[in-house]
Amino acid sequence: MTAFFQTPIVVLANGRFPSNVIPLQILDEAGTVICTDGSADTLLQFERTPHVIIGDLDSTKLKKSDFKGLWIPDQDQYKTDLQKTLEWCLLNDLNEIAVLGAMGEREDHSLGNLHVLAEFSEKMTVHFITDFARIYCVKGQQTFQSKKGQQISIAAVEEVSSITTKGLKYALNNELFPPACNGISNEAEGDEFSINTSHPIWLFINHIE
Amino acid sequence: MTAFFQTPIVVLANGRFPSNVIPLQILDEAGTVICTDGSADTLLQFERTPHVIIGDLDSTKLKKSDFKGLWIPDQDQYKTDLQKTLEWCLLNDLNEIAVLGAMGEREDHSLGNLHVLAEFSEKMTVHFITDFARIYCVKGQQTFQSKKGQQISIAAVEEVSSITTKGLKYALNNELFPPACNGISNEAEGDEFSINTSHPIWLFINHIE
Repeated sequence: MTAFFQTPIVVLANGRFPSNVIPLQILDEAGTVICTDGSADTLLQFERTPHVIIGDLDSTKLKKSDFKGLWIPDQDQYKTDLQKTLEWCLLNDLNEIAVLGAMGEREDHSLGNLHVLAEFSEKMTVHFITDFARIYCVKGQQTFQSKKGQQISIAAVEEVSSITTKGLKYALNNELFPPACNGISNEAEGDEFSINTSHPIWLFINHIE
Repeated sequence: MTAFFQTPIVVLANGRFPSNVIPLQILDEAGTVICTDGSADTLLQFERTPHVIIGDLDSTKLKKSDFKGLWIPDQDQYKTDLQKTLEWCLLNDLNEIAVLGAMGEREDHSLGNLHVLAEFSEKMTVHFITDFARIYCVKGQQTFQSKKGQQISIAAVEEVSSITTKGLKYALNNELFPPACNGISNEAEGDEFSINTSHPIWLFINHIE
């Protein structure tokens, strides 16, 4: 059976549109681009067309009648457009998602989106790519590729009762790790590092300059 | 006795330099501008001169010999430049601080700075002003000015066991409030609102468009 949606799947949220080559390449190579409401207009400005639009559909200037892709209205006042979009992805068995445009405009939306990342990372493989970093939410044991000297940051989503890292300059060894700024600006020592954490943390793998 | 430092005191951190009229006016009206290392160079590009520079002093292109203000080197590897700067403010009895440039570049630095805001809000009167919002960290009971319809967001720094709001469209009534995205995009109902919270929350009062 052929999948209905071409992979890779990219969600474009309504934060800052990427300008860095790394997220732009991910956008160019996407098999399916899903826009959250107003981000469809931004994508059109950059001469690309979304395959799917999801949300209140009160922000986009696109009209349903002019749009050849999937038009998915969802009026739920208690969910953000990114939540609605990732829920729709889950319903359609799209379980591996790169999200662009999630950060960089209103700070409350950016922080809210980090919490959406935490919520959906328990259910699917999802991460953000911004102009500065790849952002993951990690729980349990996971290994990541890196380059020596690459800037890595870890921040607790909630109180972490035990975290251990391997391959980072400032090691954490089975430590309590509260939500604070002390895990910012760590560094990879080589071509991979690993994290084992009892509770979710946000991991920022900054792009190499 | 005359205070040594002219008020209002503005700290310029090394995130995105403001472009919105609200933070720019705060910068123009500052009695003392304190820069964290590299932000001194950004300020000079905008034809303003800092009164104080604090940090590693490895990022600024300024030379001590050319600089007429206070030059405060602090090499502590375990503290961010913003932490060093706010500690120096406390030591010098500067207890009322507006911080510009704290958000909007690397996302790990922005999140780290929000935690620095939480840490220092227990010791002094400090808030961030960005292109989008005034950002506070609140614990206990506090009242804020607003306009009807102004976008207000609340996010827990850590698990909140009880929070109550008055004057917001989506009211919270003595509720549990975990770190999540459900307090984003609330709205002021009139010209003031109040929050009473058992544990610290970040409050985003978005500028009126």
